[in-house]
Amino acid sequence: MANDCLFCKIIKGDIPSAKVYEDKDVVAFLDIFPFTKGHTIVVPVEHHETFFDFPDEKMANYFTILKKLADQIRLNLKADGLNIVQNNFRAAGQVVFHMHYHIIPRWTDDNKPFIKQPKDQAGPEYFAEMLRTIKGL
Amino acid sequence: MANDCLFCKIIKGDIPSAKVYEDKDVVAFLDIFPFTKGHTIVVPVEHHETFFDFPDEKMANYFTILKKLADQIRLNLKADGLNIVQNNFRAAGQVVFHMHYHIIPRWTDDNKPFIKQPKDQAGPEYFAEMLRTIKGL
Repeated sequence: MANDCLFCKIIKGDIPSAKVYEDKDVVAFLDIFPFTKGHTIVVPVEHHETFFDFPDEKMANYFTILKKLADQIRLNLKADGLNIVQNNFRAAGQVVFHMHYHIIPRWTDDNKPFIKQPKDQAGPEYFAEMLRTIKGL
Repeated sequence: MANDCLFCKIIKGDIPSAKVYEDKDVVAFLDIFPFTKGHTIVVPVEHHETFFDFPDEKMANYFTILKKLADQIRLNLKADGLNIVQNNFRAAGQVVFHMHYHIIPRWTDDNKPFIKQPKDQAGPEYFAEMLRTIKGL
C-alpha cells in the first residue's frame, strides 16, 4: 500500500468506488471516466507502479481473474467485442501509478476509435534495424 | 494449428516474419504495420481465437514472457512508455483470429493518440445500472 496512491485508497475503501469484483489479491471497479459503457479497471491489491514491477508469480491468478471478469462484462453487457489495454509511464498515457488493466467493452456501432496502424507495410531496413536493436546486437 | 490462420503460418515459418522471440509455447514478431517503432505481436503457439479461449493454465508462462519482452523492447529502444493492447472480436478491432497481445513502445513526442476518455465523470445512475448488469442482478 502506497500512501499517496489513488487506487490503494480505492482498494482500502477510503475513496468510494463501484466495485465489480474484490478478493484478497485483485480488485475491479468501474472507471469514473468510461470510454464505453462498463469500462472497468482491474488492479492487484499489492501496489506495483507498472507492469514491469508486477511479480511473475502473481501472473496466473491476476490474468485468470482478468479473463473471467472480461468475459462476465462482455456477456452481461451483450458487448460485440472487448479491448484489454494497459499503459506504462506517462508517455503511454498512464495517469495512476498503480499497475492496472482496462477492460473496455465494444459495440459494432459505438463509433469509438481503434488504434490506427499505417496502411503501408514496413520495409526490410526497418525489420533489420528493429531486430538488431531489440535483440541488443 | 488452424489451416487458414495467418499467425499459425507465421509461427510455422510458412510465411516469413521478423521474429523477436521464439520458444515452444510463445512466439513474438514485429507487426508489419507498426503503430510505432518496434511494435511487436506476442502469440501463443497454440491456436486460440480470442483471450476468452486462452486456457488459465497457460497464463503464467505467457504473461511472464510478455512482460520480459515488453521490458526488453522498452529498454533497448529507449522508449519513454509502452502500451499493451489486446483486441477481441471485430467490434474491438481484431483482424487475425489467433489471440495476440500488442506491445507498443511510446515516446513523449511521438504524437500518437491515446484512448481519449471523457472529461466529465459518470454519475450515480450509470454506476448503479452497470453494477446491476455486470453482476447479472
